[in-house]
Amino acid sequence: MSAEPGTPKTTLPIALDAVGGDHGAAPNVEGAVQAARAGVPVLLVGPRVALHAELGKHPGSASLPLDVVDASDVIGMEEHASDVRGRTGASINVCTRLVKEGRAAAAVSMGHSGATMASALLTLGRVRGVDRPAILTHLPSKQGFVTLLDVGANADVKAAYLAQWARLATVYLRVVEDRENPTVGLLSIGEEPHKGSQLVLEAHGLLRELHGHGINFHGNVEGRDLFQGTTDIVVTDGFTGNVVLKLAEGEAKVLFGWVREALGGSLKTKVGGLLVRPALRGLAERMDPSTYGASILIGVRGLAFIGHGSADARAVKNALLRAARAHEADLIARLEAALAPT
Amino acid sequence: MSAEPGTPKTTLPIALDAVGGDHGAAPNVEGAVQAARAGVPVLLVGPRVALHAELGKHPGSASLPLDVVDASDVIGMEEHASDVRGRTGASINVCTRLVKEGRAAAAVSMGHSGATMASALLTLGRVRGVDRPAILTHLPSKQGFVTLLDVGANADVKAAYLAQWARLATVYLRVVEDRENPTVGLLSIGEEPHKGSQLVLEAHGLLRELHGHGINFHGNVEGRDLFQGTTDIVVTDGFTGNVVLKLAEGEAKVLFGWVREALGGSLKTKVGGLLVRPALRGLAERMDPSTYGASILIGVRGLAFIGHGSADARAVKNALLRAARAHEADLIARLEAALAPT
Repeated sequence: MSAEPGTPKTTLPIALDAVGGDHGAAPNVEGAVQAARAGVPVLLVGPRVALHAELGKHPGSASLPLDVVDASDVIGMEEHASDVRGRTGASINVCTRLVKEGRAAAAVSMGHSGATMASALLTLGRVRGVDRPAILTHLPSKQGFVTLLDVGANADVKAAYLAQWARLATVYLRVVEDRENPTVGLLSIGEEPHKGSQLVLEAHGLLRELHGHGINFHGNVEGRDLFQGTTDIVVTDGFTGNVVLKLAEGEAKVLFGWVREALGGSLKTKVGGLLVRPALRGLAERMDPSTYGASILIGVRGLAFIGHGSADARAVKNALLRAARAHEADLIARLEAALAPT
Repeated sequence: MSAEPGTPKTTLPIALDAVGGDHGAAPNVEGAVQAARAGVPVLLVGPRVALHAELGKHPGSASLPLDVVDASDVIGMEEHASDVRGRTGASINVCTRLVKEGRAAAAVSMGHSGATMASALLTLGRVRGVDRPAILTHLPSKQGFVTLLDVGANADVKAAYLAQWARLATVYLRVVEDRENPTVGLLSIGEEPHKGSQLVLEAHGLLRELHGHGINFHGNVEGRDLFQGTTDIVVTDGFTGNVVLKLAEGEAKVLFGWVREALGGSLKTKVGGLLVRPALRGLAERMDPSTYGASILIGVRGLAFIGHGSADARAVKNALLRAARAHEADLIARLEAALAPT
């Protein structure tokens, strides 16, 4: 977090893929307006005329640090990630190029996550010492939140990737979230070091060697430890991590549906509604993924964030603020210093 | 399900590892008494004197179809699964031997799950055509429940195992749970056939070939589909399945804790308590793993079930009833017929 929370000192703007996501320009532009009001300058990347029309709906936006960068093409949600190659005019490619050229501090997109990863990798490359970038995200837990990676960029991995991700996530939490010595758990199917897949057994050995040298390795954790918040960070392959993320979101949705259903009788009475509704709203807030805004593509040599396709303005705003914070904290340089071969 | 639900026709008793689990003999004996009252004969396997003392606490149990088979040794929860080798007097080994010798219909244990799997495999072997048995369990879903396998027996797998498990689970649901043509989903990180790990891509091909020949293949499913109940069966490797199972249980526990906390104010008022408490009780029941009782070791050539170490009497009773139903339905012969090479 910045010294003065909520008022980042960034002057370099954040490039926002302003037409990415399920709902097109509206939530992106609204989120950008909110971020700009909080002091974060934004470059809205997309079809110029449409974006200016959308900006026109926000009175006073003309005086905010907002600019439009024209991009006529967009990678649709149904296209392949590899379609970013050669589509130089696609909004996500324009965003990552602005970062590469030093004209933007970070690229943020609520659009096609595979395409965003591909564009970021092709344009910005990797931090030295990193074989494969990962998607780092946050899940709610009893301790606030737990940081999980990889949640989908790498379905097949090597043990060395997991060790690199543990180091990257440690720097990220220290620099961006002010956690001094975050603990790292390795997701497995038993706490004992001898339990797990061949991959996990090998990764356990690598992480144990790194303990005290760049990471604070707690040991193996299990599925139940995620919501318990046993460790600050949980590393796993992108297949398991993606299943975990989607299960966690899907289960919360179904369980809260059951709670509402079970409390239906109470909600229908006036007194029941007064007693129960505020509590349910508080809970929904706690579980809302838009609190975190977006996930960072960690290990890319430049700041790139991807969010939910269904992101609302609040999620877009929070993603932009988080990107500004990462830039201020000089995250990429800190990652490079930490991963540099000694 | 039997023709007359709740009153299985079994005459061959079920062998219960009566000292397995976190709470020793008490819940096992109480569950056995309840099952015997429901018409299922049980062999209580464990230290004779202690079990008779426990039985003495249940008035009228002397007239029930309950017998004690002495076993002085027990595999502790902290021992290794491989410790079952050579420990012929261990309660779990006595249970599986009773099945092997045709003196019991099934073995049921709430004890060390790895040891139970090892004992069942060593003593009973595998159904022909099955490379590796799996642990098959049930998770609650919007559609009632979803059947998930493997949840932990095989951390490293081959695509062929997943295809075999799809066939085994299909027969199980048809024979034991009366689901005529259950759908099979392959757990992946995208619905599209080209998404997933190398293992999943290969398994997808095998399952597609089997569609219409022993299984009803729906295609890939994602983490969010588990609680949605998109398919009746979900197949995955034992690493991912174990993480899923423990995450699902752990998340439910934490989320319901938050619900209770959020509703705390309401629960403290008299009217709030009256409105909210019954609803929360109904929900807890829905999520209670003891409804299913235990998981079957599917692919073993003989009936073997393992339950939670924390199982209560209700879980033990339900496990015994389910084992009796599987025996009545001649599950093992039906599995062998379905998997026989043609």
